[in-house]
Amino acid sequence: MTIGVPHLTTALQGPLLHLEEHLLKKQTQVESWLRGQWLETPAPFYASVDLRNAGFKLAPVDTNLFPAGFNNLNPAFMPLCIQAVQSAVEHLCPKAQRALIIAENHTRNLFYLESLETLRQIFEQAGIEAKIASLREDVTEAMSIELPSGKTCVLEPLTRKGNRVAIGDYSPCLVVLNNDLSGGRPKILDDIEQQVTPPLAAGWTTRKKSDHFNHYKTVAEQFAEQIDIDPWLVSPLSLQCGQINFKEKAGIDCLSRQVASILASIQQKYDEYGIDKEPFVVVKSDSGTYGMGVMTVKSAEEVANLNRKQRNKMSSSKEGLEVDNVLIQEGVYTFETIGPANAVAEPVVYMMDRFVVGGFYRVHTGRGENENLNAPGMHFEPLAFAQSCITPDKQDAPDSGPNRFYAYGVIARLALLAAARELKALQH
Amino acid sequence: MTIGVPHLTTALQGPLLHLEEHLLKKQTQVESWLRGQWLETPAPFYASVDLRNAGFKLAPVDTNLFPAGFNNLNPAFMPLCIQAVQSAVEHLCPKAQRALIIAENHTRNLFYLESLETLRQIFEQAGIEAKIASLREDVTEAMSIELPSGKTCVLEPLTRKGNRVAIGDYSPCLVVLNNDLSGGRPKILDDIEQQVTPPLAAGWTTRKKSDHFNHYKTVAEQFAEQIDIDPWLVSPLSLQCGQINFKEKAGIDCLSRQVASILASIQQKYDEYGIDKEPFVVVKSDSGTYGMGVMTVKSAEEVANLNRKQRNKMSSSKEGLEVDNVLIQEGVYTFETIGPANAVAEPVVYMMDRFVVGGFYRVHTGRGENENLNAPGMHFEPLAFAQSCITPDKQDAPDSGPNRFYAYGVIARLALLAAARELKALQH
Repeated sequence: MTIGVPHLTTALQGPLLHLEEHLLKKQTQVESWLRGQWLETPAPFYASVDLRNAGFKLAPVDTNLFPAGFNNLNPAFMPLCIQAVQSAVEHLCPKAQRALIIAENHTRNLFYLESLETLRQIFEQAGIEAKIASLREDVTEAMSIELPSGKTCVLEPLTRKGNRVAIGDYSPCLVVLNNDLSGGRPKILDDIEQQVTPPLAAGWTTRKKSDHFNHYKTVAEQFAEQIDIDPWLVSPLSLQCGQINFKEKAGIDCLSRQVASILASIQQKYDEYGIDKEPFVVVKSDSGTYGMGVMTVKSAEEVANLNRKQRNKMSSSKEGLEVDNVLIQEGVYTFETIGPANAVAEPVVYMMDRFVVGGFYRVHTGRGENENLNAPGMHFEPLAFAQSCITPDKQDAPDSGPNRFYAYGVIARLALLAAARELKALQH
Repeated sequence: MTIGVPHLTTALQGPLLHLEEHLLKKQTQVESWLRGQWLETPAPFYASVDLRNAGFKLAPVDTNLFPAGFNNLNPAFMPLCIQAVQSAVEHLCPKAQRALIIAENHTRNLFYLESLETLRQIFEQAGIEAKIASLREDVTEAMSIELPSGKTCVLEPLTRKGNRVAIGDYSPCLVVLNNDLSGGRPKILDDIEQQVTPPLAAGWTTRKKSDHFNHYKTVAEQFAEQIDIDPWLVSPLSLQCGQINFKEKAGIDCLSRQVASILASIQQKYDEYGIDKEPFVVVKSDSGTYGMGVMTVKSAEEVANLNRKQRNKMSSSKEGLEVDNVLIQEGVYTFETIGPANAVAEPVVYMMDRFVVGGFYRVHTGRGENENLNAPGMHFEPLAFAQSCITPDKQDAPDSGPNRFYAYGVIARLALLAAARELKALQH
């Protein structure tokens, strides 16, 4: 599974090499700045960040605070996960011996269950007993599911007793959410006295991507100042529109204007750096995940002229959450490809506490360099990162494997910091 | 280098299997108890612990607070070291961007310099610039030494400016001691305002092995109570004698009596567990390291009848520190062997902050199972641990690789905790 590092198939590597060189040269500033940031704003319990590597630019496009996909990480990095969980638990609930993991509702997705069981085992190996609870009403008793890996995942019904949730008599102080609450904030979790991490406010009932990317913009500017680069090299331009109703064509004017504005800004940056590519924009539902309510556009006219099918597709996202606000974001080309078929490879970086614990590429053969790889029903092959993201090698070329992974880890931690600030604001 | 796990060549595995089973079964209690202990007494910056595995018993015999041998660790575990150093620096001096490592004085030992350079690189990869200073008077300018690995180690002279030490203008807030101060506490380090870690009090000018093992005895008892075992299974019996002068034969009576007493106690335990082996005792200088001032005895008469050569050997240890107090410790057989020649293999476990980051076996072909492998001039081959010490596998046999390494890591952390308490007491 770990067969190396994708090729960067673009001639436009100048600015990225410049960025990678800077990250290496300024590594001590980068790391001590980040250490200082975590003291001010503690990192979320865990996160995964989708990155896009355009050669001339490396930026996050999505930050998931309830990550799945732990089963896709390189098994060699499990010790890093274990060590990071021990550190996270020390901050939250130092004497915790047990944890309760609250799962997503799609209980029939074996890939997801593999991730859940891997996550549970990370807790167990860190010396914290862990059980998995489901919020689904049809899970009324313990349910054992055999997984393709040979492991077994046991889902048990969550119950409420006074101010605590439990599985039977199992009611630990630490409740770990692995459910993004797209289906709404479940009553059973209201006002419980246990420590819930990430907090309920991190769910899609309150979280907005536009908030995240506003925080990210500030983080990127502060970071860029530290290492003396153009923040655009690590940050996608973003705008938002409220009051959109695709079905009823409400707010489409605002959307067209913002799309035109952002396309013009991208073109300006492309001109500045001599990038001979067509700018594009990604329009996303401001809440929710799993690639639903996402479209790629290259002109304002495309937005004005959406057909009914396209509008329907945009008007619903996961578990029926209605699209209302939308995020209009600079599209970042994916120029990493792998294998003889030049399959597009999109890096996903995993963090626990403030530590980068690994990652993998979503390798996709049938899709273009400017499309969203994390779309519903889209098939991808996970390719675990061959090396850790924390072993940069200054003796090696800035774009060598260890240094490319290090760059991923730095940019992913900037997104993690934006999420930390976002959560702090949501809880106040 | 990483060719597996040594065989345990003894039929006397019953009690150890019992211990390993217990550690696995009670893993959550073990880990949460340790987490609680680190909150009360922070772990030393780093340490290595020599263990002996007798099959029926697994115990530490030496705890080094200024470890060398980082070059002997499995390179695959460097990320664990990097993550652990980041965590340690966060506690000590969170905004630190730089560190100064103070080296041992044996600057011509290439093995030691390989370790130093590996340590320096761990800091660099953790995002902390690091330089190595020497206390030697003959190091008057920067000295570059080419190493067998192809790396270069640069030693620079340490200078004092007011209340700070420096290499030229390089005077960071964090000073990391990798010198055990056997040669005395250097004046240049007195009353500096920088953070020195481990503290000067951890040097052999103040530290005593008998203190360490007194603390260890208490730790082992508390731990044994947690997981309901006989503390003897993880703890060597220890006694001490003061006012010993081997050259002048002073205090030899006390020594004979203590040796007789401890041999009787071991015999009692061997009888209790049905162990058909001859008890032996290790007599060690109470300060100092590197296997100097160490002898193995099997009877009180041996001590009474030491010849001049033996007495001379015992009366000096590293850098001429005079032996005064001695530690009389239960000898723990080493029943781990490897390879067709059944070479004796002694595990050494490395920790940074409170994390187990790896280890290796000292593999020695020409020496018996009851002798000290860490003796001056003794040749050993390092065999890096093939797996990390933090990935126990409850599905596997208690004595499988991952579970054996986990047991090592637990017992090593008990010694680390004893060292933490020892340092706390020394600083008050």
